[in-house]
Amino acid sequence: MEPLQQTDIKLKIIKEKHTQIPSLMKKLEISCWLIFARETITTPDSIMELTIGTDMVLHSAFIFAFKGEEFKKIAIVGNFDAHEQKVRGLWDEVVGYEKGISNDLQNVIQELDPKNIALDYSIDSIISDGLTHGMYLVLEKILDNYKHKFISAEKLISALRSVKTPTEIELIKKACQITEEINSNMTPFIRVGKTETELQALFYKEMDKFGVQEAWNKSQCPMIDAGPDKELGHVGPQESNKTKQGYTLHNDFGVRFNGYCSDLQRLWFFGSKNEVPEELRHAIDTIIEAIQIAARTIKPGLQGYEVDKIVREYIVSRGYEEYKHGLGHQVGIQAHDGGTLMGPLWERYGDTPKQLIEENQVYTIEPSLRTKSNGMIALEEMILVTKDGAKFIVPPVEDFIYIT
Amino acid sequence: MEPLQQTDIKLKIIKEKHTQIPSLMKKLEISCWLIFARETITTPDSIMELTIGTDMVLHSAFIFAFKGEEFKKIAIVGNFDAHEQKVRGLWDEVVGYEKGISNDLQNVIQELDPKNIALDYSIDSIISDGLTHGMYLVLEKILDNYKHKFISAEKLISALRSVKTPTEIELIKKACQITEEINSNMTPFIRVGKTETELQALFYKEMDKFGVQEAWNKSQCPMIDAGPDKELGHVGPQESNKTKQGYTLHNDFGVRFNGYCSDLQRLWFFGSKNEVPEELRHAIDTIIEAIQIAARTIKPGLQGYEVDKIVREYIVSRGYEEYKHGLGHQVGIQAHDGGTLMGPLWERYGDTPKQLIEENQVYTIEPSLRTKSNGMIALEEMILVTKDGAKFIVPPVEDFIYIT
Repeated sequence: MEPLQQTDIKLKIIKEKHTQIPSLMKKLEISCWLIFARETITTPDSIMELTIGTDMVLHSAFIFAFKGEEFKKIAIVGNFDAHEQKVRGLWDEVVGYEKGISNDLQNVIQELDPKNIALDYSIDSIISDGLTHGMYLVLEKILDNYKHKFISAEKLISALRSVKTPTEIELIKKACQITEEINSNMTPFIRVGKTETELQALFYKEMDKFGVQEAWNKSQCPMIDAGPDKELGHVGPQESNKTKQGYTLHNDFGVRFNGYCSDLQRLWFFGSKNEVPEELRHAIDTIIEAIQIAARTIKPGLQGYEVDKIVREYIVSRGYEEYKHGLGHQVGIQAHDGGTLMGPLWERYGDTPKQLIEENQVYTIEPSLRTKSNGMIALEEMILVTKDGAKFIVPPVEDFIYIT
Repeated sequence: MEPLQQTDIKLKIIKEKHTQIPSLMKKLEISCWLIFARETITTPDSIMELTIGTDMVLHSAFIFAFKGEEFKKIAIVGNFDAHEQKVRGLWDEVVGYEKGISNDLQNVIQELDPKNIALDYSIDSIISDGLTHGMYLVLEKILDNYKHKFISAEKLISALRSVKTPTEIELIKKACQITEEINSNMTPFIRVGKTETELQALFYKEMDKFGVQEAWNKSQCPMIDAGPDKELGHVGPQESNKTKQGYTLHNDFGVRFNGYCSDLQRLWFFGSKNEVPEELRHAIDTIIEAIQIAARTIKPGLQGYEVDKIVREYIVSRGYEEYKHGLGHQVGIQAHDGGTLMGPLWERYGDTPKQLIEENQVYTIEPSLRTKSNGMIALEEMILVTKDGAKFIVPPVEDFIYIT
């Protein structure tokens, strides 16, 4: 891609997203979408990164609405922020207020007189739930005459965020490629007797060389799990846990490149290929085949849980307990990017596993299993959904990386 | 202070905050405080940084409650997060759930049977509004029998965040000292004919040397305003705007050191002291005196607007329009740390200017004014509220920094 400045790339993506909004709103029968936010550094609404792109201090309203057949984009912001919004050129109209937003917001909504007003809240969709409860109460007060028209914008936000634009896909691919380069550069340093924290520090150095940031909480990215006794999941590197001959090193790791994430799991084995215990061989073969099954199954139009179910059953058929998490989540500006989940129909996932897999979404595939004597085994790949099915973003793992 | 690791410092501050919680809850007659969150990287609840300290993926409930005279701290988290919460040692009880949080949360609340349940939402207090509207709806469903007991935790959160612990005060002081060192190291590079973006890039380099991060949105931190034509506020550095002989460079700049912020404004003048136009001399003298008036006025027990009013009137008495913003905000883990505001009673500030100034709070003092031919003039200092009044955290500015 062209060598754009980071702020230019962001604005380019926002403009790509803005072109998607009118047709999505029409399809979902939303006549007005109102993003309402304040002090977004403290309490961000994540969809603003893809639709607004600046942090706001005072109460700010961003309105996308049909007035008849005409589509209007209006920003109402504190006087100090008005100039910057005008300069960015995203809005048909920018209103700057001095003492309070109420009058201007009431006037704009009255003028539009929308059939419904979609707001950023959702019971199930974490990415569509950026409106705080306090701000909802503020809106109920300001738009008292319109509060019966409030609806959830979850479907709009979910679609807007999930379906990646060409620029977004390029950036995710680049993040994955850098992740694999870092894994590869690290391999000579991955030796028996290293502590998890030691290895994490070396990854940090390598990330600095590439100028990339961690894709999630730095203390757990890279995650670094040495040997058989580590419970995979959300436990970070331990100073007390060392890599051991005859055992594995597992790493769940992602980087953020120009705002877009990767999320990949890799496995090293301390020993040569013929020293791999039978139990471990069976485990990694199962995981690699499970990933292939998922990739062959994924098609636009399926519900997320349908893919998870097939892979879950395969793992069980190979003699393991089912994994205690979802098979795969979407990736984008966050490693956990929300929307449709390829996961089981458990309460904690809400309705996200029932949502559809669609073209140009990006997912992880990350089955795991527990062995008797060799701990947990897991790999994670990333795929792009195309109209013909899943396409791996970087080549999938075919075996352990051997440290001899 | 002792050379602690960053994670140790964070845990130390969280433990200091936990010791404040029971007495604050008693004083505010809160019998149960429930922090309810999910996927906090996407949608953070800012008070978790001071009370929990880890990011959560699945629905998580953190409960502080009196059961009779006994004070209990209970965490209910997804099974993958349970181990880490146990290791951190903050909780009397850690419950790990597998498929959904409902049953465990209902059981714990039933067992406690609290008089009220304080939740993290607020109409006016931005720092106390971390609960999203969707998550509020989830709670209403899970705790259907208790929803009439929901109240806002705003006073508790505000007090907990505003009143700084000894460790927090040390970190803020260090952030201010580093900011002043960076300003001082930069001065030899501040010359006539430099663009705003050029200067910003040099500040970034200097920040890297100190290993500190920007205190707010990087594109506007440092802010860098050259010459008389720049509207102060939230417009970042421009490539097209250059420093000019006989005019000022204004900079609004803060760093983040171990998670704590500074926020200071400084002024350079391109010329010698005797070349300062009369209008500019009058302006900076007014600002410096306005800051001193504020510092002499501030006392625990005053309402925020009372200080703003005195300074605002002083600025007007000197022949200027009143400034279109508040006089000063609190600073802590964010540059805009919420709680009591020393600001006017305008709608956009809600009730925050009516709240009390209290011992161990940290504020900015940042009056500004507009001159006819020399643009806007502003300085910003930071003070700690002691029982005897305001104490400057670093020495306040006494004049322009002259570039000759």
